[in-house]
Amino acid sequence: MNKQIKFLLPESEIPQTWYNIAADLHQAPPPVLHPGTHQPITHADLAPLFPEAIIAQEVSMERNIAIPEPVREIYKQWRPSPLFRARRLERALDTPARIYYKYEGVSPAGSHKPNSAIAQAYYNKAEGVKLLVTETGAGQWGSSLAMACNFFGLDCKIFMVRVSYNQKPYRRALMETFGATVSASPSHETAVGCAMLAKDPDSTGSLGMAISEAVEVAAQNPDAKYALGSVLNHVLLHQTVIGQEALKQMEMAGDTADVIVACTGGGSNFAGIAFPFLGQVLRGERTGLRVVAVEPSACPSLTRGHYAYDYGDTAHLTPLTKMHTLGSTFVPPGFHAGGLRYHGMAPLVSQVVAEGLAEATTVSQLESFAAGVQFARAEGIVPAPEANHAVAGAIREALRCKEEGISRSILVNVSGHGHFDMQAYTDFMAGKLSNYDYPAEEIAMALAGLPQF
Amino acid sequence: MNKQIKFLLPESEIPQTWYNIAADLHQAPPPVLHPGTHQPITHADLAPLFPEAIIAQEVSMERNIAIPEPVREIYKQWRPSPLFRARRLERALDTPARIYYKYEGVSPAGSHKPNSAIAQAYYNKAEGVKLLVTETGAGQWGSSLAMACNFFGLDCKIFMVRVSYNQKPYRRALMETFGATVSASPSHETAVGCAMLAKDPDSTGSLGMAISEAVEVAAQNPDAKYALGSVLNHVLLHQTVIGQEALKQMEMAGDTADVIVACTGGGSNFAGIAFPFLGQVLRGERTGLRVVAVEPSACPSLTRGHYAYDYGDTAHLTPLTKMHTLGSTFVPPGFHAGGLRYHGMAPLVSQVVAEGLAEATTVSQLESFAAGVQFARAEGIVPAPEANHAVAGAIREALRCKEEGISRSILVNVSGHGHFDMQAYTDFMAGKLSNYDYPAEEIAMALAGLPQF
Repeated sequence: MNKQIKFLLPESEIPQTWYNIAADLHQAPPPVLHPGTHQPITHADLAPLFPEAIIAQEVSMERNIAIPEPVREIYKQWRPSPLFRARRLERALDTPARIYYKYEGVSPAGSHKPNSAIAQAYYNKAEGVKLLVTETGAGQWGSSLAMACNFFGLDCKIFMVRVSYNQKPYRRALMETFGATVSASPSHETAVGCAMLAKDPDSTGSLGMAISEAVEVAAQNPDAKYALGSVLNHVLLHQTVIGQEALKQMEMAGDTADVIVACTGGGSNFAGIAFPFLGQVLRGERTGLRVVAVEPSACPSLTRGHYAYDYGDTAHLTPLTKMHTLGSTFVPPGFHAGGLRYHGMAPLVSQVVAEGLAEATTVSQLESFAAGVQFARAEGIVPAPEANHAVAGAIREALRCKEEGISRSILVNVSGHGHFDMQAYTDFMAGKLSNYDYPAEEIAMALAGLPQF
Repeated sequence: MNKQIKFLLPESEIPQTWYNIAADLHQAPPPVLHPGTHQPITHADLAPLFPEAIIAQEVSMERNIAIPEPVREIYKQWRPSPLFRARRLERALDTPARIYYKYEGVSPAGSHKPNSAIAQAYYNKAEGVKLLVTETGAGQWGSSLAMACNFFGLDCKIFMVRVSYNQKPYRRALMETFGATVSASPSHETAVGCAMLAKDPDSTGSLGMAISEAVEVAAQNPDAKYALGSVLNHVLLHQTVIGQEALKQMEMAGDTADVIVACTGGGSNFAGIAFPFLGQVLRGERTGLRVVAVEPSACPSLTRGHYAYDYGDTAHLTPLTKMHTLGSTFVPPGFHAGGLRYHGMAPLVSQVVAEGLAEATTVSQLESFAAGVQFARAEGIVPAPEANHAVAGAIREALRCKEEGISRSILVNVSGHGHFDMQAYTDFMAGKLSNYDYPAEEIAMALAGLPQF
């Protein structure tokens, strides 16, 4: 067995193409429906929000989609990202498991999000867009898009979920350092925001609300488009550079992944690492792979939601997609993993779970931070609160290996660092964080409001 | 000319040895003196504070000192660090200069400091030490030592300069996440701290004061030793991995450094990048190299201090070294680059400047942050406030190239990222930061108190 702890690929091994799992799925993805007519949406429906190239990717059935050279050029600043063997964590856990982590925190914005932000900014610039409008939860997506817009000379406007806006002032500072304008959502800048604040002046916001505000602004400005940081097919597509690299790096390590673990909010980092491996399974090239999606117990769309058509946003401005959802009106409690506070789940991730290709589990806020601290002390890297869920899932798998006396290979995606989230660690260590009760009543109410077909 | 933007060395190119410039300097470094007797210090004088291996390195005249394999093993997590060509910054400045930056922010603690922290923790562990006590300014050193102690199973106690303790709660959270205990300095935990607080209950602290407190605690505990993050010869030695890698990376880029720029507080990142290049000059292997040390105009030891024997700390517990100093009782104003708030300068850096091998210049707080924002927007990386001084110096050099119509190659050390310093960026963008007047009177008073020989 290889003694190395770091597996680095040369720049030439940055993938030339993104991997589109839709080409390999045995069932075609269910159609996306217009929010008004409930009929399958057309290019024309999406054109006010997205550039043509992105719309084409959203519905593409091609397996491999070329990455434009200017996008690869920027990827080169931090890609291929490193894969590490977590030898010190293995020792701390006294486990026979082989734990590998793909570390996306090396990007300048500190997470996997630039993989799609750079691509989206590129395509929008190429089609003459002047302003990109988006939402952000914890701020990882917002800061990534702010950076990408800057690189391509686009303006950037960001609606940041209010609870994160207050919890994470450093993330906002990063977006503003990159030149973006940031508003706490719900805001008084949009009609939907005003309506939400009229209903609940103290609203902590949600990704669903912030999406509504961003979509409203983008739709009303002919020079602007909308950008989404997760959920949609094209975003997941862009993230597959992660898994494609990890496949080669596991080969470098002389190993194969038995279990892949990633956290799921909208689903993009999960898809990014898992889909290229699942492609091998779907094409019959390998068997015996378990894929585990880890979600927060306070926002458990995959484990407690319905697999049904629902809106992507609170104000019902977005199309309807078939996905695991807790109901578009559900507002998750204000836990620190803001990137996981989304009522729905990427349709492709939902399908993969519904078809039994991946399983899902939940982790509480306290378990996630305990895992993050243990990981930080062993590996030196402080994961983001979102990534702590993945780390907790990997630790569970490693401890199961110990119980069973089996050495499995566990590959976990550490999707970003927690440098802008240290208040959460301070609160955790001071005993000020709590687990949120499962919000059963709120979820039941939101699910009761699901659109009927 | 090479079109690449990133120059990465394989793991095998992590240096096998540290480079000791004392072996190449034409004059032997002046002796270090005992604070009581004013006679050259002995091993026995230093033994209560440092392990034998470190004391040996402090006075070594060997050119190349082997890096222990366990230290290199840990370096492998992030070393060799990348060297980047700042093509987007060059375009933004419209300069004919070729700007390269060595980026040390890729370490898990986010700066160059682990290069020495890992080595110091290793040597202390090897000699049976249980607890390392240190001080930290901005927190880069403290968090690095906290991480390193963790890796080697040592306890870690940190005195953090009070102004930074208040300005940078995220840095403190990082140290605590790594398991260290952190006290604001001056504190009531030490005799020297109590005396300082009696004199000025509102003291913002200084590195000089925090060193006194850490030395006091270490000297009184037989299981404890003291660790310093800059200034001393062995710390500078450990940092030379930076410059040794950069030499090879400039070769990869098919270029030679005409100008090297780094910021100076205690001098360790400056020495780390510059000394291996200066070694070539000292050995007559190259000419035509300019080396520029950039210091904050509010704490200008190299440009406005005396080159004289002085204490390393405020309470005069440390030996006397010949260095550029503003006087050991000088308390710099509370600007945001806490790592540069030191009254003295590394003796070896002082000697190099005194002998004309390097020059020094100052940058104001506002110029440094303006440079940092410009760098962040162009390159995506947000530098630490300390590193902003280096970036400002590099931008000045690049603009000079433009004025003169000359394409020089500028190599700048971006010694760390600013993720834990975002409040400073927020304040800067809100117009809340100011330049500090040159503290002429305070410096004159402190210099008047220099020990006389």
